Amino acid sequence: MTRIAICAPATPISHTVAEAVTELASREFPDLELAFHEQCFAEQGHFAGPDHVRLAALLECANDPGTAAVWFAKGGYGSNRIAREAIAELGTGAADKTFLGYSDCGFLLAGLYREGIGRPVHGPMPVDMRREGGEDAVRRALAWMSGSDDGLEPEIASAPVAAFNLMTLSSILGTSLMPDLGGHVVMVEEVAEHLYAIDRLLFHVTARLADARIAGLRLGQVTNVPENDRPFGSEPEEMARFWCERHGIPFLGRAEIGHSAANMIVPFGVAAGSTRS
Amino acid sequence: MTRIAICAPATPISHTVAEAVTELASREFPDLELAFHEQCFAEQGHFAGPDHVRLAALLECANDPGTAAVWFAKGGYGSNRIAREAIAELGTGAADKTFLGYSDCGFLLAGLYREGIGRPVHGPMPVDMRREGGEDAVRRALAWMSGSDDGLEPEIASAPVAAFNLMTLSSILGTSLMPDLGGHVVMVEEVAEHLYAIDRLLFHVTARLADARIAGLRLGQVTNVPENDRPFGSEPEEMARFWCERHGIPFLGRAEIGHSAANMIVPFGVAAGSTRS
Repeated sequence: MTRIAICAPATPISHTVAEAVTELASREFPDLELAFHEQCFAEQGHFAGPDHVRLAALLECANDPGTAAVWFAKGGYGSNRIAREAIAELGTGAADKTFLGYSDCGFLLAGLYREGIGRPVHGPMPVDMRREGGEDAVRRALAWMSGSDDGLEPEIASAPVAAFNLMTLSSILGTSLMPDLGGHVVMVEEVAEHLYAIDRLLFHVTARLADARIAGLRLGQVTNVPENDRPFGSEPEEMARFWCERHGIPFLGRAEIGHSAANMIVPFGVAAGSTRS
Repeated sequence: MTRIAICAPATPISHTVAEAVTELASREFPDLELAFHEQCFAEQGHFAGPDHVRLAALLECANDPGTAAVWFAKGGYGSNRIAREAIAELGTGAADKTFLGYSDCGFLLAGLYREGIGRPVHGPMPVDMRREGGEDAVRRALAWMSGSDDGLEPEIASAPVAAFNLMTLSSILGTSLMPDLGGHVVMVEEVAEHLYAIDRLLFHVTARLADARIAGLRLGQVTNVPENDRPFGSEPEEMARFWCERHGIPFLGRAEIGHSAANMIVPFGVAAGSTRS
């Protein structure tokens, strides 16, 4: 029996989501035991409870030697507010754990990867159950935690990889959460940002990743782009090519990550297979 | 006669705006000659013409020894795409010029300040004519270029200062446009961003400005905040205090800058008076 502890470092999920995920897991992955921390359902303003409550739940899940993985319930915004404190208080119980999530939880994945703690993995979260086709996304994460490699992003190749939401990565750059991504293929995706904001993010992120000497950039999905008062005039892939060229980064094509049910699994670091014990 | 050259490094203005500003200037500031570059009205997708057209107009205005100031017509997004090239090609004609604008034009102000070229100044732009009370904002900029200190931000004090839109500053951090702001009082303002995004920006910006050893932060106006699906739970000033405290930066209170007609003038560097020749 593999025990998965679930907490919400940013924003809360509903009991309905937790029940649907639990039901799917018990039906299809009898080897997995899902333990939703009560904090997943806490609410304070924007967040799943105050900072100290989210921090305590994360530490409880991460430091428990009886759990194999910490699965982040949902992104949104807020994991940056507890990431440094969490990392400082992680003990030996966290050392070999998988930490799975994406979007705002990239703050934690980044910090963990920087410190060499556990195995940070970009992939679907319980909240994805609400999406169209969301059961497939959740099933992919459960299968991966159950030992299957089927859900891995297909372009994970010879170089080490990392995957981020573009805005999250932009906010991590230069902070004490930023890992050394030298030699890495970096995959980025975005949701619900105007095209001009995506261009600005790519300007910033490629400038800094060029300094970090990454191996190349891949662009994931860019979804739910709001209408602006006028058309921007170019599409996200053109922008990514433009900024990669300007800053001397190889643009390696697309990546199958994003805020959709098609979001694939990207274990940070060396590629598929070798990441599993 | 003081000649002011106006170009649009980001997005275009209308002829109506230019005419209204010209009329105000000729009525109240007969010592000023406003020269709107034709590029101010160019359009290509989001931008006031393609990058090379915006760059050429900026260089033409900035390198002309017959003009005393370059006034940026409007922000929006796009000056980052030409800032490095522009700075590389500025000659002696730009050395003593005032460069006046704000918002997205902060990319240019930052880069100019970094390189010690001219006198970068945060202040109202021609496009502000469209705002409620916008005539006052434009009048403030014209008066300043005409030699009056009346429009200076009142808290400009003994330390050197710089003023930025928060998102713009976040995108500048760590890039080749970032000036050394050590010992500076940094003023930030924001418009049309969700409160969670403002908290995220403050996280990022204060982390980096703490490393840069700034003297303190002042918060300008935060306007047009979109409604989120739930209340965030704290207001911008609380957030600024929180992140300043977390990152060891003195929070010095509010600043009279922002995306409104009340946006005051902040010459970068040493304080009022000494900045004028």
